[in-house]
Amino acid sequence: MLERFKVPTEDRVYVTEEKIRAATNAIFLKMGLDEEGARVSTDVLIMNDLRGVETHGVSNMLRSYVAGYGSGALNPTPNIKMLRESSTTATWDGDRGLGAHIGPMAMQLAMDKAEKHGQGAVSVTNTGHLAGAGYHAAMAAQQDMIGMAMTGSGGVQAVPTFGAEPRFGTNPIAYAVPARKMPPFLFDVATTQVAGNKIRLARRVGAGLIPNWVAGPDGTVIDKETDGIPDEYFMLPFGGTRENGSHKGYAFAAVVDVMTGQLSGAGPGFIKQKTAHYFQAWKIDAFMDTEKFKDDMDDFLEGLANTKPAPEQERVFYPGLSEFEETNKRKAEGIPYHREVIEWFGTAAAELGLDLDLP
Amino acid sequence: MLERFKVPTEDRVYVTEEKIRAATNAIFLKMGLDEEGARVSTDVLIMNDLRGVETHGVSNMLRSYVAGYGSGALNPTPNIKMLRESSTTATWDGDRGLGAHIGPMAMQLAMDKAEKHGQGAVSVTNTGHLAGAGYHAAMAAQQDMIGMAMTGSGGVQAVPTFGAEPRFGTNPIAYAVPARKMPPFLFDVATTQVAGNKIRLARRVGAGLIPNWVAGPDGTVIDKETDGIPDEYFMLPFGGTRENGSHKGYAFAAVVDVMTGQLSGAGPGFIKQKTAHYFQAWKIDAFMDTEKFKDDMDDFLEGLANTKPAPEQERVFYPGLSEFEETNKRKAEGIPYHREVIEWFGTAAAELGLDLDLP
Repeated sequence: MLERFKVPTEDRVYVTEEKIRAATNAIFLKMGLDEEGARVSTDVLIMNDLRGVETHGVSNMLRSYVAGYGSGALNPTPNIKMLRESSTTATWDGDRGLGAHIGPMAMQLAMDKAEKHGQGAVSVTNTGHLAGAGYHAAMAAQQDMIGMAMTGSGGVQAVPTFGAEPRFGTNPIAYAVPARKMPPFLFDVATTQVAGNKIRLARRVGAGLIPNWVAGPDGTVIDKETDGIPDEYFMLPFGGTRENGSHKGYAFAAVVDVMTGQLSGAGPGFIKQKTAHYFQAWKIDAFMDTEKFKDDMDDFLEGLANTKPAPEQERVFYPGLSEFEETNKRKAEGIPYHREVIEWFGTAAAELGLDLDLP
Repeated sequence: MLERFKVPTEDRVYVTEEKIRAATNAIFLKMGLDEEGARVSTDVLIMNDLRGVETHGVSNMLRSYVAGYGSGALNPTPNIKMLRESSTTATWDGDRGLGAHIGPMAMQLAMDKAEKHGQGAVSVTNTGHLAGAGYHAAMAAQQDMIGMAMTGSGGVQAVPTFGAEPRFGTNPIAYAVPARKMPPFLFDVATTQVAGNKIRLARRVGAGLIPNWVAGPDGTVIDKETDGIPDEYFMLPFGGTRENGSHKGYAFAAVVDVMTGQLSGAGPGFIKQKTAHYFQAWKIDAFMDTEKFKDDMDDFLEGLANTKPAPEQERVFYPGLSEFEETNKRKAEGIPYHREVIEWFGTAAAELGLDLDLP
């Protein structure tokens, strides 16, 4: 994560994984989720926090989920309906279940199909926020599969290249690939220049914008650094400008809309305003000897990590490596939350009648 | 395509689709391909030229294929070996067949598997250049499927983010999705800032570099516009700089290396120096009613094309739209080649003892 997104030292409150996990789990249980649903939803958020992806951890997301359960937009006890199924595919109506809650079940079904038939895929409509796609992709990598997850949303904020009207959410894509001795390859990126939550996080920590990160309300790319976050803006596809490849970010955002919205029946995000997900698993053994594959992955990842760095750079990382190291660090030292996040837990505990053990 | 890549007006020679197709087909036949192999290899290149993707048409590629057949690096009569197969997957040894030659066969097998089981995928090792991945993805879209194709190479030119040693080829990814009345969604992009061929094309047309397009030999990003093309450079992942998301281009380049090289057994591109491909088809009907899907796609694509443009922009395109329009134009007016390309055909015809009907 870029330096500007980190919680300023003076605002940090370190909390152990165990304590934030217990507090988050208690809130999900209070919302009405069953034990397993609360456990897995918590696990998704805490994995993000441990990896340093706090944009998709409890800081930004939990309060909006609590609001969603409160308003009835989210259903804590979804009754998932199978809309269509083949030996390798399934389409689900998620009955307004949170993505972080039912996404792992959908990924498991994709993996079960891949185990039998080489590959499996599940698309999900009528569902809530996924809380990042990395967790779901990583499930497959733990079972000698390549995992992929996408989530599209009706919360449109990003303009297409040359456009002045929003057409896409941040539409993230995640891939996870196992190795043997090297930490697994795992990436989870928004198809916008920055994740939507990062803009909110930047506002909280008082950071500004980098050139070509967003467009103004008329679609003109803001090509200068700013001191703070403008009141009105549109997100841009990754690349930012056409010259720097924003048509590629736009194209991947559209693919996510197709694989989540159109394939699940939710429809185009900017028209139907629905959140939808897509999960895919490929069994390595269906293509290639798994042991040779893992050897090749070790050589590949080691070679990437050992790439000679450019001047003024310390190291070259591969996707998942710095997050793996951060996870180990945070498991030992605790997770640094902004004090305002911990204050929210206090307020929420009082309102919900919970006794949470947090600093 | 950016203006700087277009052939300058004074250097343009317009050739009808029919004539360039006949000339290209004659050369492939002379190289020893059978009728069907020559036809499909020609079709791949001419589709690129018609779409305006001349970086992957006859201009840049045909002469290198002729050299490859001449040296024995490419095999005009490959005997494809099935290395592993499941109901939904296959891994091929391509016996040094050109990617443009055997890629369409591999995509057809992926589609046949998808027709029966919902999805299909084929990875290919021991093969040559694919000539763009769009043709192969588009095959699926013509059969009510979503198509995806990737190609990874051992011709490493691109540094990872922060790196000073090349680790990837241009590693392109293509997706194609059918619609009903709107031209199909189709994109085919390099995971580098610019396709490798575009740099060569820019050199031919006398264009320079845009900031953040490439790095110098020590890995430092060249962040100023240049008058010409430097003698030595490394390509950058799309995004260009970390701040503009080059870690995303890097991550997608790595996914292409995994799906092509590791999954086919070719191994990591930068270690094993082999070209490899990956083809995937998803049958829409396995997830969703195909007619509803196509209606949704029409609404989606129409909505994108009708997006209000930003100031100083005329229109918003979606991936495949401008290429569709260009194809219609070039079918009517001919394809504008650089006169140097037509001269090459003349020289090649003399050397190969062919009588080609070209200007």
